[in-house]
Amino acid sequence: MQNRKWRMGMVGGALDAFIGVVHRRAALIDGRAELVGGAFSRSVAKSQATGREYFLSSERIYANFQEMFAVERRKPEGERMDFVIIVTPNDSHYEIAMAALSAGFHVVCDKPMTTTLADAQRLERKVKQTGLLFCLTHNYTGYPMVKEARSLARGGDLGKIRRVVVEYPQGWLATRLEASGQKQALWRTDPRNAGATCCMGDIGSHCENLSEYVTGLKIKALCADLTTFVKGRTLDDDGSVLLRFDNGARGILWASQIAVGEENGLFIRVYGEKGALAWRQTEPDTLIVRRLDRADEVRRRATPFVSKASQAAAHIPPGHPEGFHDAFANLYRNFFKALAAAHAGRKVRESDYDYPTVHDGVRGMAFLEAVVRSSRAGGKWVKL
Amino acid sequence: MQNRKWRMGMVGGALDAFIGVVHRRAALIDGRAELVGGAFSRSVAKSQATGREYFLSSERIYANFQEMFAVERRKPEGERMDFVIIVTPNDSHYEIAMAALSAGFHVVCDKPMTTTLADAQRLERKVKQTGLLFCLTHNYTGYPMVKEARSLARGGDLGKIRRVVVEYPQGWLATRLEASGQKQALWRTDPRNAGATCCMGDIGSHCENLSEYVTGLKIKALCADLTTFVKGRTLDDDGSVLLRFDNGARGILWASQIAVGEENGLFIRVYGEKGALAWRQTEPDTLIVRRLDRADEVRRRATPFVSKASQAAAHIPPGHPEGFHDAFANLYRNFFKALAAAHAGRKVRESDYDYPTVHDGVRGMAFLEAVVRSSRAGGKWVKL
Amino acid sequence: MQNRKWRMGMVGGALDAFIGVVHRRAALIDGRAELVGGAFSRSVAKSQATGREYFLSSERIYANFQEMFAVERRKPEGERMDFVIIVTPNDSHYEIAMAALSAGFHVVCDKPMTTTLADAQRLERKVKQTGLLFCLTHNYTGYPMVKEARSLARGGDLGKIRRVVVEYPQGWLATRLEASGQKQALWRTDPRNAGATCCMGDIGSHCENLSEYVTGLKIKALCADLTTFVKGRTLDDDGSVLLRFDNGARGILWASQIAVGEENGLFIRVYGEKGALAWRQTEPDTLIVRRLDRADEVRRRATPFVSKASQAAAHIPPGHPEGFHDAFANLYRNFFKALAAAHAGRKVRESDYDYPTVHDGVRGMAFLEAVVRSSRAGGKWVKL
Amino acid sequence: MQNRKWRMGMVGGALDAFIGVVHRRAALIDGRAELVGGAFSRSVAKSQATGREYFLSSERIYANFQEMFAVERRKPEGERMDFVIIVTPNDSHYEIAMAALSAGFHVVCDKPMTTTLADAQRLERKVKQTGLLFCLTHNYTGYPMVKEARSLARGGDLGKIRRVVVEYPQGWLATRLEASGQKQALWRTDPRNAGATCCMGDIGSHCENLSEYVTGLKIKALCADLTTFVKGRTLDDDGSVLLRFDNGARGILWASQIAVGEENGLFIRVYGEKGALAWRQTEPDTLIVRRLDRADEVRRRATPFVSKASQAAAHIPPGHPEGFHDAFANLYRNFFKALAAAHAGRKVRESDYDYPTVHDGVRGMAFLEAVVRSSRAGGKWVKL
Repeated sequence: MQNRKWRMGMVGGALDAFIGVVHRRAALIDGRAELVGGAFSRSVAKSQATGREYFLSSERIYANFQEMFAVERRKPEGERMDFVIIVTPNDSHYEIAMAALSAGFHVVCDKPMTTTLADAQRLERKVKQTGLLFCLTHNYTGYPMVKEARSLARGGDLGKIRRVVVEYPQGWLATRLEASGQKQALWRTDPRNAGATCCMGDIGSHCENLSEYVTGLKIKALCADLTTFVKGRTLDDDGSVLLRFDNGARGILWASQIAVGEENGLFIRVYGEKGALAWRQTEPDTLIVRRLDRADEVRRRATPFVSKASQAAAHIPPGHPEGFHDAFANLYRNFFKALAAAHAGRKVRESDYDYPTVHDGVRGMAFLEAVVRSSRAGGKWVKL
Repeated sequence: MQNRKWRMGMVGGALDAFIGVVHRRAALIDGRAELVGGAFSRSVAKSQATGREYFLSSERIYANFQEMFAVERRKPEGERMDFVIIVTPNDSHYEIAMAALSAGFHVVCDKPMTTTLADAQRLERKVKQTGLLFCLTHNYTGYPMVKEARSLARGGDLGKIRRVVVEYPQGWLATRLEASGQKQALWRTDPRNAGATCCMGDIGSHCENLSEYVTGLKIKALCADLTTFVKGRTLDDDGSVLLRFDNGARGILWASQIAVGEENGLFIRVYGEKGALAWRQTEPDTLIVRRLDRADEVRRRATPFVSKASQAAAHIPPGHPEGFHDAFANLYRNFFKALAAAHAGRKVRESDYDYPTVHDGVRGMAFLEAVVRSSRAGGKWVKL
Repeated sequence: MQNRKWRMGMVGGALDAFIGVVHRRAALIDGRAELVGGAFSRSVAKSQATGREYFLSSERIYANFQEMFAVERRKPEGERMDFVIIVTPNDSHYEIAMAALSAGFHVVCDKPMTTTLADAQRLERKVKQTGLLFCLTHNYTGYPMVKEARSLARGGDLGKIRRVVVEYPQGWLATRLEASGQKQALWRTDPRNAGATCCMGDIGSHCENLSEYVTGLKIKALCADLTTFVKGRTLDDDGSVLLRFDNGARGILWASQIAVGEENGLFIRVYGEKGALAWRQTEPDTLIVRRLDRADEVRRRATPFVSKASQAAAHIPPGHPEGFHDAFANLYRNFFKALAAAHAGRKVRESDYDYPTVHDGVRGMAFLEAVVRSSRAGGKWVKL
Repeated sequence: MQNRKWRMGMVGGALDAFIGVVHRRAALIDGRAELVGGAFSRSVAKSQATGREYFLSSERIYANFQEMFAVERRKPEGERMDFVIIVTPNDSHYEIAMAALSAGFHVVCDKPMTTTLADAQRLERKVKQTGLLFCLTHNYTGYPMVKEARSLARGGDLGKIRRVVVEYPQGWLATRLEASGQKQALWRTDPRNAGATCCMGDIGSHCENLSEYVTGLKIKALCADLTTFVKGRTLDDDGSVLLRFDNGARGILWASQIAVGEENGLFIRVYGEKGALAWRQTEPDTLIVRRLDRADEVRRRATPFVSKASQAAAHIPPGHPEGFHDAFANLYRNFFKALAAAHAGRKVRESDYDYPTVHDGVRGMAFLEAVVRSSRAGGKWVKL
């Protein structure tokens, strides 16, 4: 039982960032948490401006995460922040997360979790050692109809899965946007911030995570063809990957940042022996369900015709669209439940709470390393 | 400039209500307001449970709105609630709003504003007298692509408007749900709570408001055919209305609660001499724009291809769907801006802040009275 | 059993006409009929050009229908045309059809059947007297998924029908196209050719026919608001009609020729006590089926999941789209079956063959007369 | 100038076949050709039944193609068939086509053209030698909006092409349908009839052809992963292929016959530096066009907003859907134009007539051989 608002601290997420404000809205929407501190930017002015926007007292707007963790950990029980949200570029996730865990804070971290598989594995060990909670925001798993897809695919209604087709096309990097100084483009296309991959790391990793989340299968081998279409760029801005899953299923994964006109077109289809499903982010309240023996069904969020798991993730009646923030908030909702259990002194198995964990982060980094390796070898099949 | 969180009180909106929680999320999502008090239900137990869920101190969970207003108005400046949210059934809106205004509180009120036109007009006078702010939550006007529709239609891009087709079909009252004791159904179908109309008042009024909001035209005459399809019900559960607008445009308005399979299918199409537009709530990020001289355009929220007004109402990148909560939050965002101006001692013209006001409420009641009058006369044309 | 190709004659349908060539394709597609004669235009040159395009011998390209009927009726059995297709503007249908029947020819006639109800009734009596076949090409009834809609609605699966919403928006007459001399626009907007109505007669009549075809209900009263939006035009180019059906169901019918951007947007929705359906011409292979107790179904043409009646009207596998010509051809297919029965000397009840007949034509004219009467009276309810 | 109907003979296409009747409808719909002879089946009874259905004289219903060609070539000029349609299973295309060409008949042949690349090349030489016309029915190129796609992609409006995503999912072979004796399934899954591939040959080849037709690019290397999911089957029933085009563009091609619920879901997307397009067979009258600098356009068949090439392929007004037969008929229409030119004694360059030729057949077989080779090698990149 939660008997007070959770106290949150944030690293990164200045006002001009995209994902920080999404995390804040997702955490605040239900009135079950409050932002109490932050190190929002390396620029003190930006950090202060961000903190003031959230009515933080100025002494809890910190110069950097080290200071924040050092000060906060010494605050008394009734005041100290409960957990830390990490929304910086990829390359600093590892260091900040390790420091947060070391300081005794639970963590919510944006993806991809690290820039190397080795770091991801170290982080996994650290989480285990500390017994703290770690939520990785693969946010698309928060959509109610993704949960319906998962219930269906894992519940056997589709029969043995044969084929996965997943894609995440975007068009925003079709030109050399980073040359204009646009911040989102700058760090994602810079190997120093992004790691070994741009497009695959940023959005291909969501495809990988969603595929495994929905089907329960594991990718065991892949063949990747990454490309850099825009001149002057060093990392991939488009890539396709053939997948083989552990049960023999085959997959195609396509991620692109140069697909002119595409916005955030995450789309997954799963085909089994008896049925199939299709879900796309731009129509998130709908899941198409197909069966050998009947006409296609259009399952809709929050109707009586979806599973308990899906219903539980829905918060308004059908036809009133839920969106990106609502799905994101579902991760926080589940994380808060785990937090309440932890605070009540119960032993928490994070997998019971249906949010992505440090293990998803390790899995994601294993995928990305394999993709890069395969592509660099000219498109060879490699095992995960 | 807002320099602290707005303090909100709520009347109605117990945990089992639909719209109360939507208001809370819409108000809380940006971290710019906090709920400080409430009279959530006539049941003290329910009210307490709701207040506890929001971590209210028990002394600010009130037995009724009278007590709340009496106590809160005496609180010191730095503590007293700033405004009141009214989310009770229709029949009590008037009394509560009058009391709130009399006690000096700004008001956010759910629609329809009252149950009679006379009450609506009295409330309009009261708002004028007190100089307080009054936001009526015709929430669909908060969608970014509705704002785009409005920019287009009012900006002359469509030419003179000729034809409006607007509909709001639902299916949830296709059977006699109220007999099961379902609370939402109970009060809406009961003339004592709902007033002279169920379906038209509940959702037809959104059609009316949206039509006038988007086009800037005024309905000047109408011919209505209300029907009660479900036995044992006294109020309308379906109705169609022919419209004539002040510029000569014609309209069709259809609202239904017995349209099996429909969820919240609000859909508006506007046709002018040179162009047309179509927007539906189930795909809220999209506006179809049609012109005599080119192929249809699919305008999308948050792209560079929409008006400043629409862009300003968008809060995440295109393709990441915004939904019902986000649109609802836009009303609060605008209301908070007006509140900041008022608190800064500036004279506030509410129409500058693009949220529905008490005048929309008067307009809505005039529409509903005309609809009921026309239908009772067997479908005669009546003037507004 | 058909043991030779049917021999067809055509009145109207010169090369520059729209509907004549559609009839020819629909009749020829299966190789079960051949065009043997025609009076395609009042212009001899046009008529000759059209006949040559179909490789007619020049002596069977006639100066006018009178000559054609006089010459053809005297031809020997094995050569004489079997039936006549009438595809002229509305005002001449009656005279030509009467002459064809008098000369002993079966008739396929475009809609609306006549320009007055009285003429329609006279034609109905003539058909009865002669015992000849008469197919009126309300072609939308030929779509396989319209037949599925009909099976559902009439078979009781939807429960008692409560509500019909039908519309046919077009945009091609949004400007004064007839001023350019465009032939299709010229005759449709000219009261001498079109009769008392343009928009309602041309496309509103399809809405009426489709509503009654699908539901089996009869419109018993209506209230119409016809408008002429384009200056210089005398007939309606837009109109909305409230409907009451014989079982108490209510309806809305909207037809427009000034709805910019709309093409041929025929769309029908039917709501009953237990279920609902939706079909639109632009996605003709799909029928949305809704039920109180399950998720929406997407029924698709030619699948095992549709009725025998619908399957029988499908001619290629699902997913390979059938279109306008295919639906039109279904009328001819059924008419040819009736023709074979008639030629075999059997007594033919046309209603057994599922094509629209002279009775649909009478019904259509009764509807149009009521619409015009209601609208002229300022939007009064009138009975059919 | 065509001054008489073209006389057609057919090999294959008995009444229970799928594609034969499609060819007949496509050829007959305009009244510009007549079926005069056929060897429709190895079963004389079936062949006779089929011929009678088309009112053929019994002496022109032949026991086999050899007899047909021998008899027909000796007929006098005014009676002899002009061309032969080959609609048998894949394995006999080569032999029949060679024989038809040797006998002096022009040929329309279904795809895939042969079962080996070597045969395809021999056929190409034969066509060149004889100077006869050869149309390969890659029918999807006949859709008006595919022609629009081609105009756009080749006309430079999209900029340099970077990415092609093409798929053709079907679900009809998700179970072992061939075990039931279903004829379509039987021959396609039998290596003796189908050649080295089932799924890729039958529908993947359409993806290949459509990609190159639309973009003008050539596939130069590929990496394929073919799978046989249904037990007891020897050929592929699903496959994915990574593509590299001659200009550096990348592609994904997916074809499946086990994608439960999919019908004939051919879908192609092309992304260039400045724009993109998307077309799917189930909505064939629509082409989505995307640009860097404006909102998406929905281009529609037969509107003034599409290219001349697309308009020329449209035969009814927008909104009245054209379908599979209409697109198929466009191949015949173009072939008939070439035929008229050839009969007029003009030298015909088939590429001027926009129908797929023997060269497309060679290209298709090269693709299929590369796919099979790559997949057998475990998914290695191979060059075409």
